[in-house]
Formats: sequence, structure tokens, C-alpha cells
Amino acid sequence: MGQSWMHDSSCSVSRSLGVLGENWTFLILREALTGTTRFADFRTALGLAADVLSRRLTTLVQYGVMSQEPYREPGSRTRYEYHLTDAGRELEVVLGALQQWGDRHLPRAEGPSIERRALRTDRPVHVAFVDNLGYEVPWGDVATVRTDAYPKDEAPEAPSQVAN
Amino acid sequence: MGQSWMHDSSCSVSRSLGVLGENWTFLILREALTGTTRFADFRTALGLAADVLSRRLTTLVQYGVMSQEPYREPGSRTRYEYHLTDAGRELEVVLGALQQWGDRHLPRAEGPSIERRALRTDRPVHVAFVDNLGYEVPWGDVATVRTDAYPKDEAPEAPSQVAN
Repeated sequence: MGQSWMHDSSCSVSRSLGVLGENWTFLILREALTGTTRFADFRTALGLAADVLSRRLTTLVQYGVMSQEPYREPGSRTRYEYHLTDAGRELEVVLGALQQWGDRHLPRAEGPSIERRALRTDRPVHVAFVDNLGYEVPWGDVATVRTDAYPKDEAPEAPSQVAN
Repeated sequence: MGQSWMHDSSCSVSRSLGVLGENWTFLILREALTGTTRFADFRTALGLAADVLSRRLTTLVQYGVMSQEPYREPGSRTRYEYHLTDAGRELEVVLGALQQWGDRHLPRAEGPSIERRALRTDRPVHVAFVDNLGYEVPWGDVATVRTDAYPKDEAPEAPSQVAN
């Protein structure tokens, strides 16, 4: 994605995809969330062309998802590391939601290649809707409600409140 | 995205993006989750070319995210409605995660255009990591652990366990 109109869309899904929705970006973030920082390591892990990787990383830096930091090894020119910002690390929940959906609905015989656990309790964790008291809410019990900021002229024919 | 290799990747994020990651697909799902079912209504809501919309819907039907059902209005030819399957409705959590990230990190002056509430309690809900007892776990307290199914030959240089 990344069409320019998406960046100022009234829909935050569109805005997010304007930054995150281009080919490869989610996989770059997947690598970053497992500790990859160096351009060459992203290339090796993803087998991605340098120019494409460079453009995607530039977009992520531009929108504050990653920060670019120079480093220099003895006898080498200055190169760059890319580190997730706090905003970038928050994307773990988005990646986690994509991962669990794929594990459930596009499974492999070998089973999931990673799992997530709570550091303090070692309990398995999943991604879900949670209320403001910290209790899980089944997705079928969640209503989507339009606010006053919902664009009047873009309103589709759907009802203004939908129970999923 | 949608590169064919992604469909059998060992990574469920890649597999999910192989089905969901093409331009427009998330926005088609956004419309479907708010009640849009008819081809013409998706076109109107998204301003999307018919051939692109048709290809995206075909992929979603092919992978069991949506079902295609014929309908016929008096004096008209048979047309099709597209309904989310249970697998498709589960994507509400993925869209919700994208939405809340955009609302927080790519905000607009008008504020969020929609919000989610628990049907039974009317409490606001967000998307988060939850343990197997149904309690929220802060994303900084979640460890990503490789299973035996993690591909040995694809292992990047990242540690095998990373606290985010």
C-alpha cells in the first residue's frame, strides 16, 4: 500500500497501512522484533533487494517506527543500524495477531514455529480484545461504535453499531 | 504481497500476509467487518477498480476468509454477496490492532473515528496480549520463544529468546 492519501485518511487502519502496508514491511518488522538491526542482516534474513529494503527502512524511520544509528567497524566505512522505537515495539501486538491467525487458519504440519509466553509467569499468551480492567473480551462480544469524528460523507450503508 | 512462496512459509506472519497482505485487502476486510457484503458496495466504499476488487475477493474466498453467495433482485441478473467466515471474523483482532496503533502513533486532530466496547459491560476494549487465564500481559513482558518447528536453516542471528 502506501498510497499517499492513506496517510491522512480518517481511518487509522488506512493510516497504519500507509506506513506498514507495503510489501516486505511487516517482515522487516518481524526481523526487527527478533533483534535484527543491521542492513546486511535484514538483507540476509529476507533475501530482499537492497534498494527495496532501503526504501522500506527509510519510510519506517520517517514515521518514527525505527531510528537510524550510524556505526563503524575498524577498517570499514560508516554503516547504519535500525532500531525499533517504542512505537515500533508496540507493533509486536499487530505481528502477534497476524501470527496467531496464520497459525490457526493457515497451519503447517510442523506446527507453529514460535510461541509467546509471559516473562514473569511463563504462561502462554495470545492476542485478544481486553477491557479497561484488563480482562479478555471474546471478539464476538465486541461492538464497533462510530465516534463524532467518523466522516459523514464516507459513511457506508453499514449500521452505525455492529456486533461482530 | 501475496508472493506464492509466502503461502507455505514456516512463518505464520508470512503465510497470513500471503493471503491478507495485498494492497486493499485489509480495507476490504475493514468494510466487511462493518457489514458490507455486496460487490457494488465494496466498490463504492473503497473507490476500487472492479478487476482489483474481484481478484482480492477471489483470494479471500479461496483461502476461506469469505464465502461467496449468489443473490438476485427482481429484473436483475444474479449477483454475489461476500460474507466473512468465522476465520474472517477472527481478523477483527488484527484490524483492531492496526487501528489502535494508528490512532496512537498516527493520530488525527479529530481523534479516533471509531471505538470498540464490550457489548455486555459497555467498557472500552483494546487489543493486547492475554495469558491463558484471560489476564492482560504488558507487551514488554512477553517473550518470543522458538519451537522445535522453527526452521534451523532460516534462523537469523537473533537470540532464540527475546524479551520485547
